[in-house]
Amino acid sequence: MKESSVPEQLDPKTLFAQRASDLQALLATAELDALVLKLPENILFATGHWVRMGGLCIVFVPARGSATLVVCDFEADDARETLDGDVRLLELGYDKPPVGPATSALLSELAEQSGCLGGRIGYEGGFEYLSHAVFGEATAVAGPTALFLQEALRSERLIDATAMITQARSRKNVWELGKLRRVNEIADIGLDLFKSLTTPGRTEVEIATRVEQIIRAEGIGFDDTRDVRAYAMVCSGTSTSLAWQPFRTTAREITRDELVMIEMGVVADGYWCDRTRTVAAGLATREQRRAYQAVRAAQTAAIAAAVPRTVAREVDAISRATCAEHGFTQYPHHTGHGVGFGYHEMTPTLSPNGAAVLEPDIVLAIEPGIYSKELGGGIRWEDTILVTAGGGQVLGGAEFDLE
Amino acid sequence: MKESSVPEQLDPKTLFAQRASDLQALLATAELDALVLKLPENILFATGHWVRMGGLCIVFVPARGSATLVVCDFEADDARETLDGDVRLLELGYDKPPVGPATSALLSELAEQSGCLGGRIGYEGGFEYLSHAVFGEATAVAGPTALFLQEALRSERLIDATAMITQARSRKNVWELGKLRRVNEIADIGLDLFKSLTTPGRTEVEIATRVEQIIRAEGIGFDDTRDVRAYAMVCSGTSTSLAWQPFRTTAREITRDELVMIEMGVVADGYWCDRTRTVAAGLATREQRRAYQAVRAAQTAAIAAAVPRTVAREVDAISRATCAEHGFTQYPHHTGHGVGFGYHEMTPTLSPNGAAVLEPDIVLAIEPGIYSKELGGGIRWEDTILVTAGGGQVLGGAEFDLE
Repeated sequence: MKESSVPEQLDPKTLFAQRASDLQALLATAELDALVLKLPENILFATGHWVRMGGLCIVFVPARGSATLVVCDFEADDARETLDGDVRLLELGYDKPPVGPATSALLSELAEQSGCLGGRIGYEGGFEYLSHAVFGEATAVAGPTALFLQEALRSERLIDATAMITQARSRKNVWELGKLRRVNEIADIGLDLFKSLTTPGRTEVEIATRVEQIIRAEGIGFDDTRDVRAYAMVCSGTSTSLAWQPFRTTAREITRDELVMIEMGVVADGYWCDRTRTVAAGLATREQRRAYQAVRAAQTAAIAAAVPRTVAREVDAISRATCAEHGFTQYPHHTGHGVGFGYHEMTPTLSPNGAAVLEPDIVLAIEPGIYSKELGGGIRWEDTILVTAGGGQVLGGAEFDLE
Repeated sequence: MKESSVPEQLDPKTLFAQRASDLQALLATAELDALVLKLPENILFATGHWVRMGGLCIVFVPARGSATLVVCDFEADDARETLDGDVRLLELGYDKPPVGPATSALLSELAEQSGCLGGRIGYEGGFEYLSHAVFGEATAVAGPTALFLQEALRSERLIDATAMITQARSRKNVWELGKLRRVNEIADIGLDLFKSLTTPGRTEVEIATRVEQIIRAEGIGFDDTRDVRAYAMVCSGTSTSLAWQPFRTTAREITRDELVMIEMGVVADGYWCDRTRTVAAGLATREQRRAYQAVRAAQTAAIAAAVPRTVAREVDAISRATCAEHGFTQYPHHTGHGVGFGYHEMTPTLSPNGAAVLEPDIVLAIEPGIYSKELGGGIRWEDTILVTAGGGQVLGGAEFDLE
């Protein structure tokens, strides 16, 4: 149960009362009468509460009046850790009223009280992730939720509020930044183990699963973390030259001196980081060392460029240019993306097409990489960083080298 | 790399050509001009191919003519293992055409060729899981996919085909049954380890993570399995009396003689099982032994009742009645549910309200349980079974007892 290095945090109840007010200001601008959130990641964003039973819990934010969180009764105490406001409880069980109609009636009542029955209701209709087979990505709401909301709120006017939500949640508050530092520190435990395990004779899957194991085992209880899961993929040898695409972790044995890459998402109580390391299982070639130096220099340059008002594609361009200056142009992947409420957030994207403008308190994964068969593989290095006026701040450590 | 006990299987290419024909027959009945599938679990159902890059891959099944699978180029060989038919490849990379417009143009072309441009298009609009924080559940398609399909297929007539798909996929073919046996055998490795690890002094999270670790490490390569992940939750002591609800795995140490429960979903190349075991970390009380006997008897009775033409609630009723005959009525949970293309399938549900009629080749999780503080906790036993005319057949083993 290690202590985190997270500095003293403000009271979450104050921060999430502020968050509710901020959302209401956005509703006024968008001329919405209310916002309904159901995805666990967005409930976390709106309330600081990480639901245990996703799908049943709902946040209702009227444009005027107080917001309400609806959760299962067994998570009532958790919810009140971050919320002073209105928390309503659902009871599960065959001797209890059915949850669907009970929630519908409650929503109707709340909407009536706040005068938004039949009004313009914002919902998460556009959340839909491009999801790997890692199953680490968040989910979506679909037809059943839309129908449910139309009936409960007597409204045909559901408005997709996805752009508003994704934009708002890209900036993290100080409590969330503490949680994001924490998940990176938990990930460090696994990355340090990865470094020590990458020796000839071990298999990719042995390394990946032992990293996942230690992260969950040490992560639960780390600075009061309740649940942790790591999604680690390990790739080795010349296959790493294709590791900018999704790859499989196999039972292949590592051989001496080859490249080994770990790509990993870790989620701790709903807060995600995205991290990658590449090491040589012994000695790297001279060219691999040069490529590694190029990648690290590119990452340093990209992090320094991650300041408010920079356009996302400029960070990508700086990273690519740095690799090119070192003589490497085999860079088929983007340079990074938003991270925090998911393994990959929808905005911003640090790619040649990335048009978003960076703002303070955005959290990014920065992941330059060089991928080349001639090089004997691919080298990627990825950290999760915080955008500040003075340049990006790296969250987490796991400071080691290619060899 | 253990050999599976799965019997010789029919050629998957024949089986999935049949599956496409079966889907076309359903389209004719539903008067749909085509069906478009995007969720990885449904692509698996339609083609036998487990996609590596969910979200990009699509299956297009016209009412007449041949079906097409669209996948990323790096999974072409995998896809051709189960499909003789039309497989189209997407290339990723900044030097390639953007994938979205390329897929849209391809879908338009396929729709035009099969005469269904502007027609009645079935899609997965109603898939939306009630998802735990385990992140093991499958995802949904939402607004963006609906819009994409409307534009690509020049059709305002998207029809939610969820009920048709969930009904069709509840019956598994012989190849799928082989894969479901396999994932249960992989799960057995973890359950057997669970039994040996449940000793005083270990923590819940140590046990859960070591079970997850061995399942993935031994599962990759097991009978050619490519990827495996386990989602294990371990609960101990009197808290198990509440373990019919979602619970957290904690750093709590097991103490002598108390109850320890593992609830676990395992997915191997897209095929899921759902398994639970409860053991005493030492000696159970006489009442716990009686409750355990009741649960096992209830499971045996429910499995025997799982024959074609039985209504789902009857299986639930038999299981409850058996526990009651043993003197235990603390049974707040359902008795089971469909499993296979997900940890929990939408149909059937073995609960007091379960109206679905069982059919041959349906796969079910059967999970009776007794939960009581007076008992010192909860006891659940869960196996994945196949519905046959002679009664349910248990897939997998992990045969041990409470003590």
